[in-house]
Amino acid sequence: MPDTVTQLQDQTLKVIGDALQSGTMQRARRILNALHPAEIANLLEALPHSQRGIVWNMLDHDDDGEILLNVGDEVRNGLIQLMDSDALVSATEGLEMDDLADLLADLPDTVTEQALAGMDYQDRQRLEAVLAYDEDTAGGLMNTDTVTVRRDVTLDVVLRYLRTRGELPHATDSLFVVDRYDHYIGTLPLTKVLTNKPTELVRDVMIDNVEAFSSQTEANIIAKSFQDLDLVSAAVVDEKNKLIGRITVDDVVDVIREEAEHSVFSMAGLSEEEDLFGPVVPSTRRRAVWLGVNLATAFLAAWVISLFQPTLEKIIVLAILIPVVASMGGIAGSQTLTLVIRGIATGQVGRSNSKLLLTKELAVGFLNGMVWAIVVAIVVVLWFKDIKMGGIIAAAMAANLMCAALAGVTIPIILRKLKIDPALAGGVVLTTITDVIGIFAFLGLATWLLL
Amino acid sequence: MPDTVTQLQDQTLKVIGDALQSGTMQRARRILNALHPAEIANLLEALPHSQRGIVWNMLDHDDDGEILLNVGDEVRNGLIQLMDSDALVSATEGLEMDDLADLLADLPDTVTEQALAGMDYQDRQRLEAVLAYDEDTAGGLMNTDTVTVRRDVTLDVVLRYLRTRGELPHATDSLFVVDRYDHYIGTLPLTKVLTNKPTELVRDVMIDNVEAFSSQTEANIIAKSFQDLDLVSAAVVDEKNKLIGRITVDDVVDVIREEAEHSVFSMAGLSEEEDLFGPVVPSTRRRAVWLGVNLATAFLAAWVISLFQPTLEKIIVLAILIPVVASMGGIAGSQTLTLVIRGIATGQVGRSNSKLLLTKELAVGFLNGMVWAIVVAIVVVLWFKDIKMGGIIAAAMAANLMCAALAGVTIPIILRKLKIDPALAGGVVLTTITDVIGIFAFLGLATWLLL
Repeated sequence: MPDTVTQLQDQTLKVIGDALQSGTMQRARRILNALHPAEIANLLEALPHSQRGIVWNMLDHDDDGEILLNVGDEVRNGLIQLMDSDALVSATEGLEMDDLADLLADLPDTVTEQALAGMDYQDRQRLEAVLAYDEDTAGGLMNTDTVTVRRDVTLDVVLRYLRTRGELPHATDSLFVVDRYDHYIGTLPLTKVLTNKPTELVRDVMIDNVEAFSSQTEANIIAKSFQDLDLVSAAVVDEKNKLIGRITVDDVVDVIREEAEHSVFSMAGLSEEEDLFGPVVPSTRRRAVWLGVNLATAFLAAWVISLFQPTLEKIIVLAILIPVVASMGGIAGSQTLTLVIRGIATGQVGRSNSKLLLTKELAVGFLNGMVWAIVVAIVVVLWFKDIKMGGIIAAAMAANLMCAALAGVTIPIILRKLKIDPALAGGVVLTTITDVIGIFAFLGLATWLLL
Repeated sequence: MPDTVTQLQDQTLKVIGDALQSGTMQRARRILNALHPAEIANLLEALPHSQRGIVWNMLDHDDDGEILLNVGDEVRNGLIQLMDSDALVSATEGLEMDDLADLLADLPDTVTEQALAGMDYQDRQRLEAVLAYDEDTAGGLMNTDTVTVRRDVTLDVVLRYLRTRGELPHATDSLFVVDRYDHYIGTLPLTKVLTNKPTELVRDVMIDNVEAFSSQTEANIIAKSFQDLDLVSAAVVDEKNKLIGRITVDDVVDVIREEAEHSVFSMAGLSEEEDLFGPVVPSTRRRAVWLGVNLATAFLAAWVISLFQPTLEKIIVLAILIPVVASMGGIAGSQTLTLVIRGIATGQVGRSNSKLLLTKELAVGFLNGMVWAIVVAIVVVLWFKDIKMGGIIAAAMAANLMCAALAGVTIPIILRKLKIDPALAGGVVLTTITDVIGIFAFLGLATWLLL
């Protein structure tokens, strides 16, 4: 339970809030500007829409770029509207290439042009290299600030080079070894430079079995490699094996967090950029779409019930029990669906074992169907003193739990083939199916056996 | 869409599966043992329960410890049962202290004792230090392999010390500067050692404004700091500011991934350690609990409907429309709930702004309630040619969407005060409330106005 994160942030929020109310701006300003850009970003996101502008104007604006990068899309767009072109251009200065590329995508074209005009030729070329790739590939995630060495020099030469060079880019744990055409050969961890004799040659201490990522590699594969191999940074090469950049673990951490939030939010039909304290009307509009989709499926269920209106008119108990059959199917199906979506994302579910998974989930659905069918039958017989009704609801529920297992495994696999995100659409499709099948089975059996 | 992860893993799985079937074990063995321990772990998780033992016996067993650490709890317990005490003891050798502490928790006591007996005094002391802390705190996450220097020496001395020492622990990006009593003073990034003149003093180039984590700091706060400050490693100190270990970014990446999976899985009432291809009966049993809880809430909804049986007998159309009112409340409430749970976890929702959030969500609920109430009213009037019925369902739905917003904000806040995980219990509590209120409002209004 993240009690303390909340409390820490909450205290700062309270101090700022009090300062704003009492007008003691000096104090609030001091507290604010002592925070790290990422903390300021968190704070801005936790403020009501109306107060963000006030706080924004209290900042020193040294780290505007970093702050903009750390807030969600929606909050960022709000802040960008508070800034004039000059402020925006200066926010782009001093950023790393991958971050700059991300930020420029959200800025007005005129600002982008000004920012580009202000850069030197080399930086502009580097930026264009990063911009040329999709944001979710190695090329889009990489920085161009690689430090390279040749393999035939001694560590002493490397040491002297580093001392002349001064500062190294952040998260530099390795230098990259390249040939004279900049082709990637291997990595030289800083720890090797430090722990080996200065007379050793780079070629003898470098690590040459670390593969570089191709610029087209997808973000989730990079994330998986960083996790599996405990990497801090890794080289990125083009199709000719030429070193073009490096990816650092901090960017990978962001990828992992974003992927995770994407799943949770998609399942509820939300955008992960949803602004918690954003204006009401846009929030309403975005969420309305999801409610509309679900309303359509609810009316479909209602229509199925209406088909059995004559039966319902004679046996009103059926109307009381419909939610029981339908909801159990939805719950059981969602469990299977969640497992399968995760399995697909981690690469554990593929063509070769999906049949096996289906068999297992059907078996689980069958067993749970049996168990809960008996429980429901007992409750219904005791409640309504109607043994036939107990049997009917038990049969409908067992059937629905089997269908739920089938749907839970097959829906995400089919949706992926159709290039639809299963985390977004899976739940709606699944509950539509389990609702319709559950209601049909229950009311159909009742019509057949009780009338 | 993680197409390629799936495909890569799928190919390996197929090759192994084919080899197992055709009996060409040599080939499979060669492919298997060329994989990284984390990849072998992924593969074992993707295999049916019955084939895991066969593959396990084909392994070289050099990396048993790493493999065991990389599979989920349930798969791990299965593998541990395949190993005898000697194999288990040797699996514990060569692991880092934090990993060893995690693994020992799952091993039989006799094996733990044997493993401890085989360690030297210093390692045993270190292990006991890590074991003394909760797994989800800085103390439980840390390794004890810190490399320390004193502040009054020159970088040349540091360089010579490192060369004599040889190999540095993995993910070492900084040395820690301590006084003679091992009190933490600051960090000395390796890049500073490399880029400054050897004659410089440690005290002049070290960074002394990086705070160390207290051993009690919770994992999620550590994860947040690593994300916000782009850390690679950080010092851990005891209550007297004595350096006791360090946390590395790879462990933090695992924390972030586990937290994310925990939310997604909890919401479906699953354990994140659920084994995708595990045996059927334990899976059934674990999921049955969740189905049971949901069955109870479904019967509660059924009971509320039964209270209005006389009304339903007269106006059967009500039975058809119940799912529409109930489900829209659940969907709208889940959206608010998901946002608030995330907001609490990231520290953006606290005491100081929860009222504000409630106001905003109520406003969104009110607007969406109005919009969809009108749409539903129109559909119902057209469908059943009954204007009064349209008005009743519209009023019930608008009321239910407001209640859903109220429940979505307050339930997670209350659950947290009760120390119950909102991701696990929030959804059930919420849909119970929206079902009951939706049904009550709809059937109650109908009874009052139509009879």
